[in-house]
Amino acid sequence: MYSTMQDVPLLVSRLLRHGSTVHSDSQVTTWTGGEAHRRSYGETGARAAQLAHALTDELRTEPGDRVATLMWNNAEHLETYFAVPSMGAVLHTLNLRLPPEQLAWVVNHAADRVVLVNGTLLPLLAPLLPKLSSVEHVVVVGEGDTSVLAGCRPAVHDYETLLSGRPTAYPWPDLAETTAAALCYTSGTTGDPKGVVYSHRSIYLHSLHVNTVEAMAVSSADLALPVVPMFHVNAWGLPHAAFLGGVSLLMPDRFLQPGPLADMIEAERPTYAAAVPTIWQGLLGELAARPRDISSLRRVTIGGSTCPPSLMREFQERHGVKVEHAWGMTETSPLGSYAHPPRGLTGEDAWSYRVSQGRFPASVEPRLIGPDGAEQPWDGVSAGELEVRGPWIAGAYYGGPETGPDRPADRFSPDGWLRTGDVGTITADGYLTITDRAKDVIKSGGEWISSVELENHLMAHPRIAEAAVVAVADEVWGERPLAAVVYAPNGDEAGTTSGGAPDGAAADDSGRDAPGHEALRAFLADRVPRWQLPERWTTIDEVPKTSVGKFDKKQLRARHAAGELGVVTLDRLDD
Amino acid sequence: MYSTMQDVPLLVSRLLRHGSTVHSDSQVTTWTGGEAHRRSYGETGARAAQLAHALTDELRTEPGDRVATLMWNNAEHLETYFAVPSMGAVLHTLNLRLPPEQLAWVVNHAADRVVLVNGTLLPLLAPLLPKLSSVEHVVVVGEGDTSVLAGCRPAVHDYETLLSGRPTAYPWPDLAETTAAALCYTSGTTGDPKGVVYSHRSIYLHSLHVNTVEAMAVSSADLALPVVPMFHVNAWGLPHAAFLGGVSLLMPDRFLQPGPLADMIEAERPTYAAAVPTIWQGLLGELAARPRDISSLRRVTIGGSTCPPSLMREFQERHGVKVEHAWGMTETSPLGSYAHPPRGLTGEDAWSYRVSQGRFPASVEPRLIGPDGAEQPWDGVSAGELEVRGPWIAGAYYGGPETGPDRPADRFSPDGWLRTGDVGTITADGYLTITDRAKDVIKSGGEWISSVELENHLMAHPRIAEAAVVAVADEVWGERPLAAVVYAPNGDEAGTTSGGAPDGAAADDSGRDAPGHEALRAFLADRVPRWQLPERWTTIDEVPKTSVGKFDKKQLRARHAAGELGVVTLDRLDD
Repeated sequence: MYSTMQDVPLLVSRLLRHGSTVHSDSQVTTWTGGEAHRRSYGETGARAAQLAHALTDELRTEPGDRVATLMWNNAEHLETYFAVPSMGAVLHTLNLRLPPEQLAWVVNHAADRVVLVNGTLLPLLAPLLPKLSSVEHVVVVGEGDTSVLAGCRPAVHDYETLLSGRPTAYPWPDLAETTAAALCYTSGTTGDPKGVVYSHRSIYLHSLHVNTVEAMAVSSADLALPVVPMFHVNAWGLPHAAFLGGVSLLMPDRFLQPGPLADMIEAERPTYAAAVPTIWQGLLGELAARPRDISSLRRVTIGGSTCPPSLMREFQERHGVKVEHAWGMTETSPLGSYAHPPRGLTGEDAWSYRVSQGRFPASVEPRLIGPDGAEQPWDGVSAGELEVRGPWIAGAYYGGPETGPDRPADRFSPDGWLRTGDVGTITADGYLTITDRAKDVIKSGGEWISSVELENHLMAHPRIAEAAVVAVADEVWGERPLAAVVYAPNGDEAGTTSGGAPDGAAADDSGRDAPGHEALRAFLADRVPRWQLPERWTTIDEVPKTSVGKFDKKQLRARHAAGELGVVTLDRLDD
Repeated sequence: MYSTMQDVPLLVSRLLRHGSTVHSDSQVTTWTGGEAHRRSYGETGARAAQLAHALTDELRTEPGDRVATLMWNNAEHLETYFAVPSMGAVLHTLNLRLPPEQLAWVVNHAADRVVLVNGTLLPLLAPLLPKLSSVEHVVVVGEGDTSVLAGCRPAVHDYETLLSGRPTAYPWPDLAETTAAALCYTSGTTGDPKGVVYSHRSIYLHSLHVNTVEAMAVSSADLALPVVPMFHVNAWGLPHAAFLGGVSLLMPDRFLQPGPLADMIEAERPTYAAAVPTIWQGLLGELAARPRDISSLRRVTIGGSTCPPSLMREFQERHGVKVEHAWGMTETSPLGSYAHPPRGLTGEDAWSYRVSQGRFPASVEPRLIGPDGAEQPWDGVSAGELEVRGPWIAGAYYGGPETGPDRPADRFSPDGWLRTGDVGTITADGYLTITDRAKDVIKSGGEWISSVELENHLMAHPRIAEAAVVAVADEVWGERPLAAVVYAPNGDEAGTTSGGAPDGAAADDSGRDAPGHEALRAFLADRVPRWQLPERWTTIDEVPKTSVGKFDKKQLRARHAAGELGVVTLDRLDD
């Protein structure tokens, strides 16, 4: 039997046409640091058509060409989001926070032909241009000191001049829905950045999902504020979803510091916002120091890294904003899971679900692969590496213009699932909790020990400032945990340590009256199974950090390998 | 450039797996007339697998075979919704309200091999069985008098016996997403019913849309009550969308009368419901006569036919339920448009949008084709026949097992768009208002006159009980309107007619003191453009009706053609 449905592809140009007609009166508002610039979706559609004409007729952009953006969140960046994929080219959003040499590497790897750059970011781009061999055109968007481009090889254009006078409609081509639409590179803490190429189909399906009640639940009734940058996994899909649902957008441009953000929220009254925990932490501090009216905000999505429950509660209790936790990565478009509590639960009952990574949408199929390679049950206890499958999940990395897709075996399973590199558990009702990164988990005698869990327990001790736990080789067990602790400066809490035991207290420690390693192990023994308790301990001055402030466990492991850590080994406890 | 996204098809089996794992604790509750039967989505998934095993192993159902259901809304019908398409067969939902000869016609046209029937509906099915040549198996679901099946040709099975002891997991096949999944026939007021075949892809995309905030906005926080039958365009997509979003379902089975419905709502406390206007009208009357607590209901979707604004307001004002208007048809899966008011509007400002047919979702691309075949502007005034295009819109009808797709030119444009047969306008901000059926519109001198608009104005006159307007041939203008009016019995309002003029009053009318045709035309002249005013008038005793109570304009046109209407022709007014 045959279906009688029409054969209509899922294309970004459909989102563009829909948003600029059915929702022509929805608006994109760009903050300019004290005022706002407003543009309707109808105008945005007309300008996207002008941009496509300029790229095609003037810059000779061809289907499949990469057009890069080095831009903040603003109305012009939104125009590129729709014009470039709709005409058949590929939008490559450049992460302006990458180290310059990585930025040059990704432009060359993608072989970008055009770079659109905000005038305020020219000082970042100009020094790189001599190294960017594929770039033929630089288009400057907005004001900036263009003298830094003097004598550069690529042709330089002004965005508004380029658009001016061109037709406000464009014959968007009928593309196959699997055509490449957008390209993001992972920031790559190890090795080179990896390119993820989204298709029209994946963007369309992801946009539909973003607008469901089970995810961000944005609609034409919202003014949505993506604080998350448009170069960070397409601002979590919000710009495309905004055209699908007629969601008005508030764009912060480069005004991302807590003070300007608070001013903008008070002035423009968004109903919804999305950002990483650090942004919300900063905003909370700002509001405590200098209150503003942020009562328009009903909900915010928090993702990018695990959010401390205390931050979620403070936001909700002090400002009446519902904070929703989400998990995802560049390879998952990014929405992988979203934490709404189960039906009927409120208050404290709901919190245990709200601080989890949440539930998977229908288009993200999950499985947990345990230490022995077997699929783990969904019991909320059995841990495994999370693998996912679905139409907006990467099945490979971009190998570059000269080569085919790149499928490293540590990132993709033989049957094509993405290995997320995250270790966690799933409950019987589908809630994911991430407990560790796969590379940091301690594989001890065929079982897994979460380094993060041990660290969190240790850091809950009043005399411990920081604690990092890494795997070290063990002849009997394969790997065992090594706990590296940093004592807090001695203070009033000294007498209140709950795990303090007289034996060995502070014998080899710098902290006066601090609990010894035996005492810390006893403290942990009340909180985790005995077989997970570390025998190896060391006291350090500070946990080494990466450039973005995360624990640098690679460096800690290297220092241990070099014999620099002065490890004390306690007797293993009887089982 | 290539996309690096995984190639994963959109399948009903994905919705099934998702709903029965991530939302395993969501529930389907079936009302049994005073109590309720409850089953979790986890159990539903296990039983769907058992059903698939029974159909495959016992009834030898093959991929592509049609499996029909003659069932009410209940948990077992939900099981067929997922088992049959997921295994690669096609679910054909039979409309139990069709005349028996049409029911037999559609079973034979679809060549159904299996019919699952609720025991309570056996008296409807049994007399038809001798005519159903393709049916090999009848599966009786639930209690009923099976003696009526004695001696019938097809093999008879009991549903629970068939499922019992079979494996609770099934290796759902990897199908192409364009595979046929479900089949509905239009009720066909003229000619034979037409079959619409939904694909896995169209059902998946439609389900995503149903769960967006711009449409029904249901989620795992809801208990949704589809009063709309599961044989009526898949209960507007709610069962499939329920598994996508983890939406718990409340099923009314055969208890659709206002009293039992009100009892069920009070007892089970749904948060959302969907039904045609007639159902809500009946429920309002029931609640006025005998109040129940329906405060759990936050929103209802009303569709299937245009809802009187008075009904929407009464529901909202008396019971605090938000009534949302929607438009669609069997050929549109069915969601074609949905009426949420624009951002920021409330109260009376919002009502003018809420009573419209609403806005189109991104996957439904609309155009209005005017009298001259040209596309009409979106100005809220220019009328045209609505044509739509999209991945869940029919591009043909099912021609039967022996033939290819059927594309009648009056239903599908040469470039493949569906001609909806509805005439209306679209505002600049995308709101559709249906003003007439295309076959009833009056094509006068290259312009269109809405018969419904003239009728509504006439029926607003206090002395007019009913009015029907039909097109009649005119030598000069092609077509002109003929107004057939039914006077209300003479009463107190006689003196209050606003358009009353002395000339010709009641000269040829049966109603004493009733306004004459000249007076009625003068009444209309204040309300519509002069060129739309009818010259031809007649007074009749009653407007002929179809079996479902709609104005039967075909019959009225036939009576006019036979010269039975005694038409009075007024002088045409000067322009």
